[in-house]
This record gives sequence, C-alpha cells and structure tokens, in this order.
Amino acid sequence: MKYQYTNILGTFLLQETDKIIKRGTFAKVRPLPEDKITSVLSLFKDSGYFQAFRQKNLRQSKRDLKAAINQDHLINQTISNIQELDKTTNLLIKRLREWYGLYCPELTHIITNNEKLVELILKKTRDQILKQINQKNTFGTDFKAHDVQEMQLLAKQVQQVQQLRNQHEKYLDKTMKNYCPNFTALAGATIGAKLLLLGKSLKRLALFPASTIQLLGAEKALFRHIKTKSLSPKFGVIHDHPIVQNAKNKGKAARALADKLSLCARIDYFKGKFKADQFQKELEKRFAK
Amino acid sequence: MKYQYTNILGTFLLQETDKIIKRGTFAKVRPLPEDKITSVLSLFKDSGYFQAFRQKNLRQSKRDLKAAINQDHLINQTISNIQELDKTTNLLIKRLREWYGLYCPELTHIITNNEKLVELILKKTRDQILKQINQKNTFGTDFKAHDVQEMQLLAKQVQQVQQLRNQHEKYLDKTMKNYCPNFTALAGATIGAKLLLLGKSLKRLALFPASTIQLLGAEKALFRHIKTKSLSPKFGVIHDHPIVQNAKNKGKAARALADKLSLCARIDYFKGKFKADQFQKELEKRFAK
Repeated sequence: MKYQYTNILGTFLLQETDKIIKRGTFAKVRPLPEDKITSVLSLFKDSGYFQAFRQKNLRQSKRDLKAAINQDHLINQTISNIQELDKTTNLLIKRLREWYGLYCPELTHIITNNEKLVELILKKTRDQILKQINQKNTFGTDFKAHDVQEMQLLAKQVQQVQQLRNQHEKYLDKTMKNYCPNFTALAGATIGAKLLLLGKSLKRLALFPASTIQLLGAEKALFRHIKTKSLSPKFGVIHDHPIVQNAKNKGKAARALADKLSLCARIDYFKGKFKADQFQKELEKRFAK
Repeated sequence: MKYQYTNILGTFLLQETDKIIKRGTFAKVRPLPEDKITSVLSLFKDSGYFQAFRQKNLRQSKRDLKAAINQDHLINQTISNIQELDKTTNLLIKRLREWYGLYCPELTHIITNNEKLVELILKKTRDQILKQINQKNTFGTDFKAHDVQEMQLLAKQVQQVQQLRNQHEKYLDKTMKNYCPNFTALAGATIGAKLLLLGKSLKRLALFPASTIQLLGAEKALFRHIKTKSLSPKFGVIHDHPIVQNAKNKGKAARALADKLSLCARIDYFKGKFKADQFQKELEKRFAK
C-alpha cells in the first residue's frame, strides 16, 4: 500500500513537473531533474494545490485499477470455471446414475460412457433402451411418468452443463490463440490455460526458468522431495501433453517440452514472431518412437 | 444371503404344498402341516423338480427386487439431488461473482441477493446496471462483447440449475403429500424429506422413538455428548421448523414437535386418518409467544 502511494505520488510529481516546465515556470532550473522535483515539492505546502492533488490521485488510481485487469484474468477465470463445471458434471451424473438405476439398472450398469447415457435417457423410453442394449426384462421398478420425468430433467441439466463447458473451451481456445499464439500452439489450449492459471500471468510465466514450467502442477511432489528426499517429480500438468505421452523417456521429453514452452512464453510476452510449429516439429522428431 | 435363500425356499415350499394339496395328492396328510412339509421335502430328491425350483426361485427374486423399491427411494433421491443442486449453485455463483466482478465490481459488491444478481447480468447491459444501482463510473475493465457473453452464459446456467431445483421441490412436495400426508403437513416438505433421508424409510421412521426423530441430523453433537459428556443436543433438522423457531423454549418445542411427528409417521405408515392439522393447532397454541 505504502509503495503504491509513493508510486502514484511519483507519477504525479513527474507529470506535474512536465506541465510546469512546458508552461515555462521552471525554465531556469531545467538542466537538473533533482532540483525540479525539489521545487515542485515546495508547491505541496501551498493549500491551493491540495484539491488538484487529490483529484489527480483518484484519476490515477482508477486508471491503474482498470489497467490491472487483462487477458490473463479472463483466461484464468475461464479455465477455473471449466474445472468447476467438470466437478459439477461428475456430481450430477453420479446422482443421475443412482436415481435412474432404480428405474432401469441395466442401462446404468452396461453404458459406462456418460454422454451416451444422458442421450439415451433423454431420447428413448425404457422399452426402447432395453431393446438397444439387448435386454429382455428389467429388474427396475415401474414408476409413473411424472416420476421418470424428474430424472429426465436432471439428465437435461447435465447435458446443458456439458454444453456450456464445451462453449467455454472454444472461447478459451480462441482467446488463448489471440493472446499467446506460440504458447497455445505448442501446449494446446487446455494445458496452456492450466499453466497460465498456475503461473498466474503470461508475464510471470515468461520470467520463470524452464524447469519451473516443467513442474507447475507438481508442487506437492516437489516439496515432498525437498522435505523428505523422496524421488523428484519429472512433470506437472504437461504430463498430459501428447509429446510427453508418446515419448519413451517421459522425463526427458517433459524437460525438452518445458524448455520450448518457456521460449514460447517469452516470444509471446515480447510479441515475437510465430515459431511454435518449428519447435513442435523438432520435438516430435526427437521423441518419435 | 443365507436368510434370503431360506426365505425363498420356504415361500416356494408353502406355495407348492398348497398346489399339491389342491391337486389332492396329499389329501390324507392335510391336518398336520409339518407332515406336509416333510412330504414335500422328499420331492426335492426327485430331479424332475430341480428345474421348476430354479425357475420359481428366479421369479421370486425378481419380484422381491422390484418390490424393494418404493416411494422412500424416490423421495430420498430427490432431496439428495436438491441438496447437490444447492451446492452446485453456490459453486457457480461464486465463480460468476468473481468473473463478472472484473467487468463491473460495483454490481457484485452492492447486490448481495444471488437471484437478483443473475437476473441483472442476464437482462441488462453494464450501463443500465450502473444507472440502476446509482453509480456514475465503474472501476471495471472494458471487455469486448464476446468476453462478456461467456459470463452471461454462466449466469444463464446458474438460473437453469435454480429452476431445476425449484421444479424438484414442487415434485417432492407433491410426492410427499401423497405418500405421507400427515407427516408432510406437520413437518413441511423439505424438513420432512430430510428426516426421511436420515431415517432411510417411512417404516423405520415410524418405528423410531420420538426422541430419535428429535435428534435426527444432530448425530455428531449427540455422540460428542455421549463420549465427552458435553451438553446434549436439543434438536436436529427440526431446528428450522417454524414452531421451534418461534418458540421461547426451543428445546421443549422440539421435544413436543418430535412427539407429534412420530405419531404422524405411524399414522401414515399404517394408513390412518388425517390428523396433522389438529396436532399443528395444539402445538401452535402451546408455544404461542
């Protein structure tokens, strides 16, 4: 807080000094900046400037607040929400399986794919479902239509949550490609966004050493390693990346990938050219089976 | 498992005995049931009956399975789902507040009512919202339309989850009034369903002593009381009931209410007459301030 205040005061002082210099008041002391500031400071004793200082301070704070929010925040909110929607879907689908299982236990037992389960419950009657999964009879209880309808409403809700999640993913992909094209192209939108969430912003990500990017998401294992001398982790969230997944030596692949990701983050932060495809090819060639 | 098997065997034996008696085969041994069963048992040595026994056993198991599910299960699933939907709403609204707070922090700060917040986000633009809550400027960042749209989609999702919850509550009310009219009328649909969920079924609820119903939902405090001699709890989920809420001596009111609820559960389980309104009047008269 104190730092911010000093900062704002400094900005104000410099800007006001510039204005006064332009107006010619301080024409004589121009060569020495320290002198300028000292002279301006004396003006603060003049109560006529108090109101102006307060207004300026408010304007500056507002501008700073507005400028503090950028694409990083939007991306972090979106990926957090996607993770929460996934959690929600799991919660609701568990309840749906249990509830619909009273009516048609064969379906919830045989169909393990959640999306297919929801679609069948929504689009077909129990007899049609039984026919499709090659069952003659059901052990389920015969409920009335309005009892089954409640289960279908829940199924519909699950579907809607899923749709919103997919919509968010599309938006995330678009936003990321715009904000950090290299990083997104090499990491993929989901892993990239997770890294961005863990690293808090693209700026911090660009300042991290590659080894930090390699282990983002494996903090627990890393600190256990430091504390108890257990084995050190080899990868964090980049574990799910296809290059790491397909490599024989996953630790080595993770190290190489993190290296290139770090480069990409720096290129994106300092608005460099698009080089991700070149990196991708290099990595694929090196870790091809 | 062993018990069930014996049970099914017994049912089979008695039914088959009846059939054989009807057919006249055992006309002579009719007066002594033990003799009948002994005679039937000898038939099991005859391999001609093996297949019939297996079929009968299967049919009986299926019937038992179907009959094992009743309204208790539907009510328990519905109230569980309502509780999970509440959890979901809280999760999503927290994210919405944080996300939309980047765009318009004044709104999420001033409006504490969640439903109103969602409605405002969905129906009005930021300028209209600011006008409504008497704010001239906003500290929020100016996002593009497609960024704001994602937040609105989330708001819509929250609204839909809320609507499903209300729909479930209506259904619960209807089902409970049908299944246990006395209990529902006195306890209310939500508290009644929670009691039913904790008691597992109306039958068990009817068999509980009133003091158990009084403390359903306060298990943690009860066992702490037994273990460490701390103060005993006075109420479980019935704490939220208006009669307990409005009473001066809440413990006394909870005891009296649990007493009448226990009576109601028994009346409902044994299909008695409607007496809940009478109980309600008695309680209200006794605990009127």
